[in-house]
Amino acid sequence: MTDELLMIPGPTNLAHRVAEAMSKPQLGHLDPRFLENFKETLNLTRYLFVNYSGTPFVISGSGTVGMEASIVSLIEPGDKVLCLDTGYFGKRFVDLATIHGAKVDVLNFETGKHADPSVVDEKLSRDNYKAITITHVETSNGLSNPIKDLVKIARKHDVYTIIDSVAAVGGCELNFDQLGADIVITCSQKVIAAPPGATLLAVSKRALDAFENRKTPIRSYYMNLARWRKFMEEPGIYLATPSIQILLALHEALLMVKEEGLENRWRRHRIIADAIRAGLGALNLSIVAEEGYRANTVTGFYTPEGKAFDICSMLRDRYKIHVAQGLGDLKGKILRIGHFGNITSKETVALLSALEISLRSFNVDVKRGSAVKAAMPYLEELV
Amino acid sequence: MTDELLMIPGPTNLAHRVAEAMSKPQLGHLDPRFLENFKETLNLTRYLFVNYSGTPFVISGSGTVGMEASIVSLIEPGDKVLCLDTGYFGKRFVDLATIHGAKVDVLNFETGKHADPSVVDEKLSRDNYKAITITHVETSNGLSNPIKDLVKIARKHDVYTIIDSVAAVGGCELNFDQLGADIVITCSQKVIAAPPGATLLAVSKRALDAFENRKTPIRSYYMNLARWRKFMEEPGIYLATPSIQILLALHEALLMVKEEGLENRWRRHRIIADAIRAGLGALNLSIVAEEGYRANTVTGFYTPEGKAFDICSMLRDRYKIHVAQGLGDLKGKILRIGHFGNITSKETVALLSALEISLRSFNVDVKRGSAVKAAMPYLEELV
Repeated sequence: MTDELLMIPGPTNLAHRVAEAMSKPQLGHLDPRFLENFKETLNLTRYLFVNYSGTPFVISGSGTVGMEASIVSLIEPGDKVLCLDTGYFGKRFVDLATIHGAKVDVLNFETGKHADPSVVDEKLSRDNYKAITITHVETSNGLSNPIKDLVKIARKHDVYTIIDSVAAVGGCELNFDQLGADIVITCSQKVIAAPPGATLLAVSKRALDAFENRKTPIRSYYMNLARWRKFMEEPGIYLATPSIQILLALHEALLMVKEEGLENRWRRHRIIADAIRAGLGALNLSIVAEEGYRANTVTGFYTPEGKAFDICSMLRDRYKIHVAQGLGDLKGKILRIGHFGNITSKETVALLSALEISLRSFNVDVKRGSAVKAAMPYLEELV
Repeated sequence: MTDELLMIPGPTNLAHRVAEAMSKPQLGHLDPRFLENFKETLNLTRYLFVNYSGTPFVISGSGTVGMEASIVSLIEPGDKVLCLDTGYFGKRFVDLATIHGAKVDVLNFETGKHADPSVVDEKLSRDNYKAITITHVETSNGLSNPIKDLVKIARKHDVYTIIDSVAAVGGCELNFDQLGADIVITCSQKVIAAPPGATLLAVSKRALDAFENRKTPIRSYYMNLARWRKFMEEPGIYLATPSIQILLALHEALLMVKEEGLENRWRRHRIIADAIRAGLGALNLSIVAEEGYRANTVTGFYTPEGKAFDICSMLRDRYKIHVAQGLGDLKGKILRIGHFGNITSKETVALLSALEISLRSFNVDVKRGSAVKAAMPYLEELV
């Protein structure tokens, strides 16, 4: 913990071995050693998503590239798309689908409220949608949507599902094979705790077929998942030079996920999230996401009025702990904690105690030690 | 030289300080230290392209992303585009422009022959083109096109110019301010000798205006240069998480370009290219690109029949020197040497002597020491 502690919602601190994987001598993109490593990365990506029924994709680019590639590959101009807007990144799907010529309907949900499956059911039954976009965990506020129920409803209406699980995969329960979704997207610098620069996707057979059976060609070269599919099946072909170092680091980070075990990792994230929520509660800070729909990876909380920037600065300057401001409308009102990746109890108590002192220094009436005390029952569960 | 020597046309071996820049503790993408570093990178990118008249862009992604972003931002569906096809990457522009709805005409030139300005002049005068795509240095064969003449002709016809200078910028003479082109594209892992994962562009005011004055919206989020323009002017805004480590390494590599001096760097690349061409000549290996149009960064040469794979393997396995196979039709017929980045005389003689021994081992009649001997007069010029 001598380094600065990143508890923003990505990127995270890197494990030493992950950073080290980037500093090996440069390999060529067609070097058999790199290609072998990449094939392993694809297998580890299957493990990460529990995706043995569909195809894993790993592409150089941000989560946004993964989202845009999903839209442009699946959606044809004129297709009807329903976007569930539960925050900043829900809106990004609205932008993407609109840009790519879809007829977009948006279901807006109040800040912190989950996408209500019955409302979605109603909406899907009233029109003929090709696809629905869902944000699993809203990085911008810490909401966790009920993806199992939402996918079930979409399947009932025979609607393709595209899920932004950027801030969830690897930390929140997600079993692609059981879920029945069509495309689930994440990226390297969130829960996987690799450096930014790669997007990872799980794509169903059904979606792959849809790419092939379009009436119009896919209007992108780099974002064309049908093109990348060939690379995922035979990584030796040349499409574009991948970000080799980032992919080597990703490989190492995915190995760490496998070593910990996916279910253990979900459990660790759940316990730490419980601890953080309890700590925030003891500090009388209210959480943006409604109860029952709070992410185990990101928590947004309202600060005492006008104090968001000051608290953020004090955490950073005095304690070398980074948390994030709100995005869009929530800027200046909330702070966001990313509690994912390699976070353990020591980072959790460091954050909670620093937050408590910051509040006290701004004359907020909170009891000394209360945040960590409230977190302790949960942290004791961590083994 | 204990490490393997990469003389493929990118990526290159990294300088220690460039590799080291990637291994610092992870920074957030909105951290002021990263943003300061990025602003410097943009200034260094101005220096690299000699672009003080237009806007520098640095975006996470491969050279292909830079090419596609240029096409999708400048070209509207139905626009007429003339693509000069002088090889594999010339054809890539044909694909990109076609995918994005342009009416594409292609001028094909024989392998190794440059795009003839008078032919281009003739063609442009016969129709109303919006833009022309030009490959500066064809990575696939080592041809260098006469971009000054080609741009002059395009300007005469009031046609926008998009130049793939992926394998040239930093090693071949290019002065964006004087050239008068609209978009020039390169990427991190070629002559700049940074790791792969960033594309760098110089964009003219004229092109920026064209982005704003389109009749139809730009059909991409991530590839939309008008959107990225805002980021280049104010790097603190959030569009997508950049590949932070790659950009830090790029910054360091660009510092090295500036320390060497752009004109010194062009000179070094010219001398080494002369040395390599002389060495190949002494080995009776014929160069793919015609005389007078040979790149100072990449050289493709025909191998004795059927020996391309064997020579490549021997260079790799016995001498730890990597050169590249041909792409597309040229696979198995030629080999390609990337002589750019941090290449000096010691790598040059290492390659030439290893190539000579390889040829002799396959019973090709070449005199001992002839390749290096032919290269020496040039290498002596390097100071």
